[in-house]
Amino acid sequence: MYVVIMAGGVGTRFWPVSRERAPKQFLNIVSDRSLIEETYGRVAPIVKEENIFIVVNEIYRKIVDMIFKNRHVQILTEPYSRNTAPCIGLAAVHIKIKSRNETLAALPADHFITHDKAFQKILLAGAKAVEKEGICTIGITPTYPETGYGYIKRGIEYKLVDGHKVYKVDRFVEKPDIKDASVYIKSGEYLWNSGIFIFNVNTILEEIKHHLPSLHEGLKKIERAIGSNSYPKILRKVYENLDSISIDQGIMEKTRGHIYMLPGNFDWSDVGSWKALYDLRKGDYDPMGNLIDGEALPLDTKNSLIYSHTKRLIATLGLKDILIVDTKDALLVADIKRSQEVRRVIEHLKKNSKKKWL
Amino acid sequence: MYVVIMAGGVGTRFWPVSRERAPKQFLNIVSDRSLIEETYGRVAPIVKEENIFIVVNEIYRKIVDMIFKNRHVQILTEPYSRNTAPCIGLAAVHIKIKSRNETLAALPADHFITHDKAFQKILLAGAKAVEKEGICTIGITPTYPETGYGYIKRGIEYKLVDGHKVYKVDRFVEKPDIKDASVYIKSGEYLWNSGIFIFNVNTILEEIKHHLPSLHEGLKKIERAIGSNSYPKILRKVYENLDSISIDQGIMEKTRGHIYMLPGNFDWSDVGSWKALYDLRKGDYDPMGNLIDGEALPLDTKNSLIYSHTKRLIATLGLKDILIVDTKDALLVADIKRSQEVRRVIEHLKKNSKKKWL
Repeated sequence: MYVVIMAGGVGTRFWPVSRERAPKQFLNIVSDRSLIEETYGRVAPIVKEENIFIVVNEIYRKIVDMIFKNRHVQILTEPYSRNTAPCIGLAAVHIKIKSRNETLAALPADHFITHDKAFQKILLAGAKAVEKEGICTIGITPTYPETGYGYIKRGIEYKLVDGHKVYKVDRFVEKPDIKDASVYIKSGEYLWNSGIFIFNVNTILEEIKHHLPSLHEGLKKIERAIGSNSYPKILRKVYENLDSISIDQGIMEKTRGHIYMLPGNFDWSDVGSWKALYDLRKGDYDPMGNLIDGEALPLDTKNSLIYSHTKRLIATLGLKDILIVDTKDALLVADIKRSQEVRRVIEHLKKNSKKKWL
Repeated sequence: MYVVIMAGGVGTRFWPVSRERAPKQFLNIVSDRSLIEETYGRVAPIVKEENIFIVVNEIYRKIVDMIFKNRHVQILTEPYSRNTAPCIGLAAVHIKIKSRNETLAALPADHFITHDKAFQKILLAGAKAVEKEGICTIGITPTYPETGYGYIKRGIEYKLVDGHKVYKVDRFVEKPDIKDASVYIKSGEYLWNSGIFIFNVNTILEEIKHHLPSLHEGLKKIERAIGSNSYPKILRKVYENLDSISIDQGIMEKTRGHIYMLPGNFDWSDVGSWKALYDLRKGDYDPMGNLIDGEALPLDTKNSLIYSHTKRLIATLGLKDILIVDTKDALLVADIKRSQEVRRVIEHLKKNSKKKWL
């Protein structure tokens, strides 16, 4: 079994801590390890080190080299970030060259998962389910009507693998509004889309050929160049002309019939905002419900997140539901319920050419 | 006429900008000049430079020297801050030595006043009113029921000086609760206590002798040492044993009969909190009612004060009535309506020996 850790993101939702130079997957916001290290650590016990591929934008190559300097992982760089379909395709052709038709699990680098053991069991069951054919995804049993996630509608029960029920996927659903999300939760038939997919190399390349023919053409060129001196040049040229498209939109939502889902029974979050981070670190709250990381003096302050990357003292007085993120050169103070709008700050900075804060 | 600018405060209400090393009177929070410079500039047109005394704690001597390096003002230092009664007494004995029985106006260094011309007229009228006897204070016609100020109840109309009505003072009232403050405002008989007092030297020393005999004893010792080498030593020894007491509590509230009041018809604030500063700088608001001083990017933010002493970017999102004060080594984020409680931060820092942030 192979694993591809997709670390291509240039996320901006954790500004001002996440910057163009340090996107979310490299931040140690949920533990003392970065999210990409957590993801690696979660699969390392069940996959050989050299079978773990990390796909990353070339501008982060040095960071990844540093993080994994003592590990024999395979690092693939992308000259441009083109979302998950090209990322998975690139890994697939490299694995194909190495060892023909292997099973491959593609994992986002920057998600949060508890219960590593449960996760590993599901992943192994998923790999077994698609050994011969098909694509398997992991659905997360939802606990509330989140509008920031995509959903997967469960189809009929298809088979049993090592005691795990494998369902057919009825359909993938885009992020719903709160009304639809509530209906989904009540029905019990909808699970959160974790963005984790398992398939064998031939299957995914066939799917790409069928649904994304121009990506397939590009991947053929890349495949032929692997091992040659012209590889970097060809990779760049192909990527330059690729469309940005996710594996979800490009393939999963179009393919019918042989997509399966394993329900995941572990806590999961895509850590998509400061609020999401606050929610998933409940265990670290102070008695007033504050999540505090740094030197802080909170007076009459509750349900707030104070996150500091400096040695400065942060004193607060009479706050509720406030997000404070302090870095060396930028400070964010926001209503924590609106932390998904942090991208608006980025947009303003771009529009006003204030690049040094991006 | 002499003026004493009382700059002895070691205020903490503008933390983290005001520190032990830089109390409020030395901050340029209302304009591009510090409050003490504003106060000086307000009297300089009507009083000779060398007749302006600045009384300051000795730890701020260097700051004052720097601010007034091109002015022939008289600087008196106190080895300990003992509130306004000793401060005024000290100035009085120095002036007595210089020129017998002069009229003297004592002004807090750190108040905000608009309309310098109106202020100067009132001050001159006050000086004229107490040329021979009595103590004159300036009452500010209140515009709302402020609970952070003391009040003065107006007595009968006593005389007319240069067209200004001079009233007898009925009594001084401590900071009221909101109910009493509202009653005061409605009655029209109560004015805000500005902390400005005018009297001649002999009168104030007589009052001190009567109401604060131990202070009077100390001042006698200091007076005898003026001009000698032992002055600093004696000053320190006397101050060491002085009680901290305000001129209001020590004398004004006890004296009956010859205390007068001139109503001031200018905008005035004791700038006693960040909220007070926000209120008095209405002219500087952005269209959303924010007062912004520094590099800020306020999104959906209203009625907030963002004050930065750094070059860091402060981005805000979805805030209302929030105070953000950013300095190199400390940050304050608070409900602006509770900015008077900033002293609680100071108390915590003292209690926990975090002196570097005081």
